[in-house]
Amino acid sequence: MPPLFTPLVQSLPSSVPFVGPEALERRTGTRIRARIGANESVFGPSPAVVAAMREAAPEVWQYCDPENHAFRFALARHLGVSPSNVMVGEGIDGLLGLAIRLFVKPGVSVATSQGAYPTFSFHVHGFGGRLVTTPYVNDHEDPSSLLDLALREDARVIYFANPDNPMGSWWDAATIEKMIAALPDDALLVLDEAYGEFAPEGTLPRLDVTKPNVLRFRTFSKAYGMAGMRLGYCIGHADVISAFDKIRNHFGITRMGQIAGVAALADQNHLRSVVARVETARGQIAAIARENGLTPLPSATNFVTIDCGRDGEYAKRILDALVANGVFVRMPGIAPLNRCIRITAGMPEDLAVLAEELPRALQAAG
Amino acid sequence: MPPLFTPLVQSLPSSVPFVGPEALERRTGTRIRARIGANESVFGPSPAVVAAMREAAPEVWQYCDPENHAFRFALARHLGVSPSNVMVGEGIDGLLGLAIRLFVKPGVSVATSQGAYPTFSFHVHGFGGRLVTTPYVNDHEDPSSLLDLALREDARVIYFANPDNPMGSWWDAATIEKMIAALPDDALLVLDEAYGEFAPEGTLPRLDVTKPNVLRFRTFSKAYGMAGMRLGYCIGHADVISAFDKIRNHFGITRMGQIAGVAALADQNHLRSVVARVETARGQIAAIARENGLTPLPSATNFVTIDCGRDGEYAKRILDALVANGVFVRMPGIAPLNRCIRITAGMPEDLAVLAEELPRALQAAG
Repeated sequence: MPPLFTPLVQSLPSSVPFVGPEALERRTGTRIRARIGANESVFGPSPAVVAAMREAAPEVWQYCDPENHAFRFALARHLGVSPSNVMVGEGIDGLLGLAIRLFVKPGVSVATSQGAYPTFSFHVHGFGGRLVTTPYVNDHEDPSSLLDLALREDARVIYFANPDNPMGSWWDAATIEKMIAALPDDALLVLDEAYGEFAPEGTLPRLDVTKPNVLRFRTFSKAYGMAGMRLGYCIGHADVISAFDKIRNHFGITRMGQIAGVAALADQNHLRSVVARVETARGQIAAIARENGLTPLPSATNFVTIDCGRDGEYAKRILDALVANGVFVRMPGIAPLNRCIRITAGMPEDLAVLAEELPRALQAAG
Repeated sequence: MPPLFTPLVQSLPSSVPFVGPEALERRTGTRIRARIGANESVFGPSPAVVAAMREAAPEVWQYCDPENHAFRFALARHLGVSPSNVMVGEGIDGLLGLAIRLFVKPGVSVATSQGAYPTFSFHVHGFGGRLVTTPYVNDHEDPSSLLDLALREDARVIYFANPDNPMGSWWDAATIEKMIAALPDDALLVLDEAYGEFAPEGTLPRLDVTKPNVLRFRTFSKAYGMAGMRLGYCIGHADVISAFDKIRNHFGITRMGQIAGVAALADQNHLRSVVARVETARGQIAAIARENGLTPLPSATNFVTIDCGRDGEYAKRILDALVANGVFVRMPGIAPLNRCIRITAGMPEDLAVLAEELPRALQAAG
């Protein structure tokens, strides 16, 4: 008898939802001409980040500082909180896995919205949590439905993204603050703010690290243009933040990433310029959508979700035709969200490819 | 009531065993003059790796390929196995955590040696495993004691490092093959070969990926000089390797790391030169030890463990005196191994600092 996986591992699906553009290229044999599907920042990292990484390259023989001291202190200063309120991890994805592990033993209920971030659900299943869901309402994750669901199902963790992925929708800070105030005391709100830098003023609630049942997740993968360096962080009560130390991979962040993160924070001009370019690109994507008779949804993120006006199969045919012609885009996985395709802010040349290929894709989709 | 950590998390200690040299500097206020404590490679990465990273720096806005395709294929080619037999992770540390999670549900026994790799034990505790141990024998992890222990305690995972850390000792391939042949069918051998590149010919058994109960762990942190990039890999049966996909952080490796790893494999000359320089440095460290009346142990690694000839408290006083004077070294945590201090192969200038400070440290230790 070979060694046995745990019963939980045996119960998990072998197929995984993570298909990158490189895999698409390998499978289709088509070179991607416009990489506007993964909500990366085509505008890249700050030149100061590139310079810092180049300088640090010969020093990668050294392990990272397992306490992430310099990076965490720089983040804390930037955020106006104490370093004890900040935890760094291998992307928000890595931190979400750890957060689930901290709070979810097998069988515990976890609440999210149908069609919300799949990686969160992946981790919930991975630790044996019982995922319960409620639909989006008018293309928004719905705070009151989620709270009702959590109460009804005794959920101990609630996922909520503001702004939302994959729909690009958002709520104002007052709504989120009301949601936080109404949280059951024994439930943790996982507030995913990966796209927060792109949102209008007044979207993100003020940081309040006195509440042990709110963790806010942010990243260098979006506005900072460093998805490939795996730098996520979360902000919360010191007692919750310090618990990550009990279970995390202490040397999981690269030394290069720590250095790059500090350099990125120091160049807020670059961040502002990216946010402005994203806003322009969103307008261009919306215009291309409208020219083709489709409906762009409002967005507070670095992507535009486009309502294709029919069902998921139709949107999928459009997406497949785009991908087959080198335009890497993605779409929501679940109805009714999957009537849409999701397009990341691109360079003018990326959007020129989109403008050229979208009419053909619509024709191919019939 | 604030949200509750799982009972397992509540049971874990808050203090963690990971104290880096940067933390020592912050706590003592002493600048480290010789960084020869963490078994990093002071000889650095290949110049080709540095060049590849510098070239890749502007592209870090792109996520890594979650399948690690190019890197995994390069590794497989280098090792002479199929890519389906290789899994890449955030250092061996990250992979050890995943391996425990695959095989150890709470209460399951896991066997290791008293004083062996603490991070392995950290992960066993972290997933609720029951750690059972047997002593080193003559400063070696002992295959037959471990097998006896595993049988007696119904251990499902057995940790064994060859060559060993922290003692630097090793067994020949035939001994390891006999151990593998004698494994209980339902027990997994975690064979940690982090230091394998430094070992004499005939130390590492031939790769055999037909056995589902052996996983071999290797790294770019030691001989390849890339500890700060977090690149570990494990080699095993395809069914076990693919199970990692059920639970891992698919975007956990940096894009920069994937590129650096491929470049590192392509420069085997650099690897050979590092191994030669490490051998020279080991001889120098041994000579310094002997000049000071201490006994260097034989080593198949990039460090030399030095028997200080008395008890753990004495060795600790020597270590503290070295650290207080800017020589970062470490020592085993448990008797009788802790009669030793452990010194990493250094540059000539590092070893000059050691030669200067060791007599003073011995004097201070009394």
